Amino acid sequence: LFPEMAISLWKNLLQTTKGRILQQRRVSLYNGAHGYEEELIKKKLQQFAGGSINLSKEDNGIAVLTLNNPKLMNAFTGTMMLELQERVTELENWKDGKGLIIYGAGNTFCSGSDLNAVKAISNSQASSDTNKDGMNMCMFMQNTLTRLTRLPLISVALVQGKAVGGGAELTTACDFRLMTPGSEIRFVHKHMGLVPGWGGAARLVRIVGSGAALRLLSGAARVDPETALRLGLSEETLSSSDGTGALEEARTWLSQYTEGPASVMRAVKKVVTAGRELPLEAALRTEKDVFGTVWGGPANLQALAKKPKHK
Amino acid sequence: LFPEMAISLWKNLLQTTKGRILQQRRVSLYNGAHGYEEELIKKKLQQFAGGSINLSKEDNGIAVLTLNNPKLMNAFTGTMMLELQERVTELENWKDGKGLIIYGAGNTFCSGSDLNAVKAISNSQASSDTNKDGMNMCMFMQNTLTRLTRLPLISVALVQGKAVGGGAELTTACDFRLMTPGSEIRFVHKHMGLVPGWGGAARLVRIVGSGAALRLLSGAARVDPETALRLGLSEETLSSSDGTGALEEARTWLSQYTEGPASVMRAVKKVVTAGRELPLEAALRTEKDVFGTVWGGPANLQALAKKPKHK
Amino acid sequence: LFPEMAISLWKNLLQTTKGRILQQRRVSLYNGAHGYEEELIKKKLQQFAGGSINLSKEDNGIAVLTLNNPKLMNAFTGTMMLELQERVTELENWKDGKGLIIYGAGNTFCSGSDLNAVKAISNSQASSDTNKDGMNMCMFMQNTLTRLTRLPLISVALVQGKAVGGGAELTTACDFRLMTPGSEIRFVHKHMGLVPGWGGAARLVRIVGSGAALRLLSGAARVDPETALRLGLSEETLSSSDGTGALEEARTWLSQYTEGPASVMRAVKKVVTAGRELPLEAALRTEKDVFGTVWGGPANLQALAKKPKHK
Repeated sequence: LFPEMAISLWKNLLQTTKGRILQQRRVSLYNGAHGYEEELIKKKLQQFAGGSINLSKEDNGIAVLTLNNPKLMNAFTGTMMLELQERVTELENWKDGKGLIIYGAGNTFCSGSDLNAVKAISNSQASSDTNKDGMNMCMFMQNTLTRLTRLPLISVALVQGKAVGGGAELTTACDFRLMTPGSEIRFVHKHMGLVPGWGGAARLVRIVGSGAALRLLSGAARVDPETALRLGLSEETLSSSDGTGALEEARTWLSQYTEGPASVMRAVKKVVTAGRELPLEAALRTEKDVFGTVWGGPANLQALAKKPKHK
Repeated sequence: LFPEMAISLWKNLLQTTKGRILQQRRVSLYNGAHGYEEELIKKKLQQFAGGSINLSKEDNGIAVLTLNNPKLMNAFTGTMMLELQERVTELENWKDGKGLIIYGAGNTFCSGSDLNAVKAISNSQASSDTNKDGMNMCMFMQNTLTRLTRLPLISVALVQGKAVGGGAELTTACDFRLMTPGSEIRFVHKHMGLVPGWGGAARLVRIVGSGAALRLLSGAARVDPETALRLGLSEETLSSSDGTGALEEARTWLSQYTEGPASVMRAVKKVVTAGRELPLEAALRTEKDVFGTVWGGPANLQALAKKPKHK
Repeated sequence: LFPEMAISLWKNLLQTTKGRILQQRRVSLYNGAHGYEEELIKKKLQQFAGGSINLSKEDNGIAVLTLNNPKLMNAFTGTMMLELQERVTELENWKDGKGLIIYGAGNTFCSGSDLNAVKAISNSQASSDTNKDGMNMCMFMQNTLTRLTRLPLISVALVQGKAVGGGAELTTACDFRLMTPGSEIRFVHKHMGLVPGWGGAARLVRIVGSGAALRLLSGAARVDPETALRLGLSEETLSSSDGTGALEEARTWLSQYTEGPASVMRAVKKVVTAGRELPLEAALRTEKDVFGTVWGGPANLQALAKKPKHK
């Protein structure tokens, strides 16, 4: 009924459209035209080593990304920032992926940037270069986190312990947040004389609304699981507090939303990404394009074949 | 005090502005420049006949649009898609209209596209044409539903029984959804190997937020009236379950919001449409233009005349 | 460790960036290119005198703006509109400011425009000029309120008594609304044969969502403190009903969110303003620019100096 040849024909046909849609997603937010010096900042980041970002891709289409620098509450060193970028590239190329869980080693999420690196960059140079380095680091992280947000994977930040500063910002780069009992998310930036710079403010406004975002950023209060649920910052409070149990709960929660063929589940994420990022008319046109990548495709034809001629 | 002559003068004066604002709304989302072949898809749709879309305009300014194909749970045949387009044109030209209720015959809302038509289109042709037809059908429906969304009428989807697939998408083209006990809205697309293509994803994100939209589309779960209320997908659960009673309840609910002169109530809908579709500055400018169509108008002058000189 | 020289160098360095960001905020929504005649409307408004807009800037960085025309429930006369513009300019130039409370004299908020002025403008002229004056007045107020919304101050409308018509619109130009027991917000426009024209519809959609905004504008119902809380239109119901007590409560509430250096708190408001007004990519870029105004700045360096070398 649906010969392999037709499916193959269809696949070839859609390469162009598909390619275009994926390509769009990979265009970086910042490039040389914005004064962004990627090679320069990569060299600087290389000097601040420590910790790692580990990625494990599972057969069920769910990947687990681990922030691993537990002696500094998983703060991002320079090399961890570089590794995060590499892992995101790897996830962009993982065609079977459907879901992603980000979590931190040692039962805590992430405390932002490693202050030793930040201090070193802030102090070792003339003021003008300091600001340039800060801007480059900021653009480096925004580029990476914007690509993370746009992955065609349904993503979850599993928050144990503390997600503070840049760690709180990182949670907003995921579609969902799940919190363990006693954990907290805290936009502590003002106490560091700062505001978010990794895109956390722009994304937080879209998650909880501008009023709640303004309260969270200007008050710098700890957000516990109950408050996060009420604000729509968290989807659910898990029951486990230990790492393994919580990770297993998060996998089970996420798998409700990743069940189905990868091509379809990735398309679902793409239409929602368009819906939240683009003005209505542009979102409608992208929805049409993404619909075109699945309509008449293998999963669609198989589903149609199962339906009775007359319902 | 407010002679007919002044009112007539005012009416003539505003023709240009008003015309421009209305005109804007009628520009189609897709035209030939997007590869859209309207005449071609209309001929194709004509071949898949069955059911009807009925429109009844009432003196109170509320119209009722009935999806009528009960033996297929009001699934859209090709001719129903064509008729929906005609009815929307009729509603665009109804200058006395203030409200619209969409409901389905046989105590159920709508099950999306008639799969017989979809199968025929999918199977009868070479793969390349299949995809072209699918895209044209998608653009045809997006054009119609976008015009429906922008009607200067306050619109309600009265959900009885099931609103599934394209039927769930249709509910998002209305301003409000009212559900009867036991009814459900279900974005079942992933089980058909699909994503929304009638604009349902883009609009759903705007109604319930991107997180809830992602859960509804990737989970494909049944949304009952209680859940819909909680998510903001429904405004109210009606008490009647039968068609006539529910329709009467919906009329009463809607009439709270349509009471007043047509020119004013239509202007209210226009400023809200601008507010939800446009970036802030563009929305502010449209609000100013729409304000100009009622300021100093008959209803405004009459209201001013009734006020005491000093409050 | 952080010599004054470095701080001064940093300050000079950032003048350009900072200036550009502030400058952007001051560009008016309407100018001559939109047919807006500012000098003409200012002369007209001058003719309708009465009441005043008072501004008191406190040492804690919180300013109180009082709408003072209690015999007309603080309705805006022409000269009050002019004074509001002047006060907003004064607030734009107040570099130490962090917060703003707007409240009305005589235990009520504001009833919109002074109808005597509106009537005079509506009746004294040929229809064509009437409409022109109405449009100019509308653009004058939208310009002022848009600048008010974009002030780098966290703003609160303290609603006692009634906020109706334009008064309800004014509350939406603040970040937050606090209501006293028994007070109400009411978008009464349709009963005046009008829709909002001061930007109230565009902003209301962003505060409560388009569905709730459509219900509030088309129903013109009184919104009491409980309903406002539920809709997200109000943050809290205060306990005091008298002016002095309520003002003190509002100050205490606001000071939770203004604690910190002015440069940082103003930056927080700026990233949230960008987040709510701009598309995601533009918001991210503005966040990066604002981050650059505080990174390596005095408050940031002092916070870093306090942190142990290894946490």
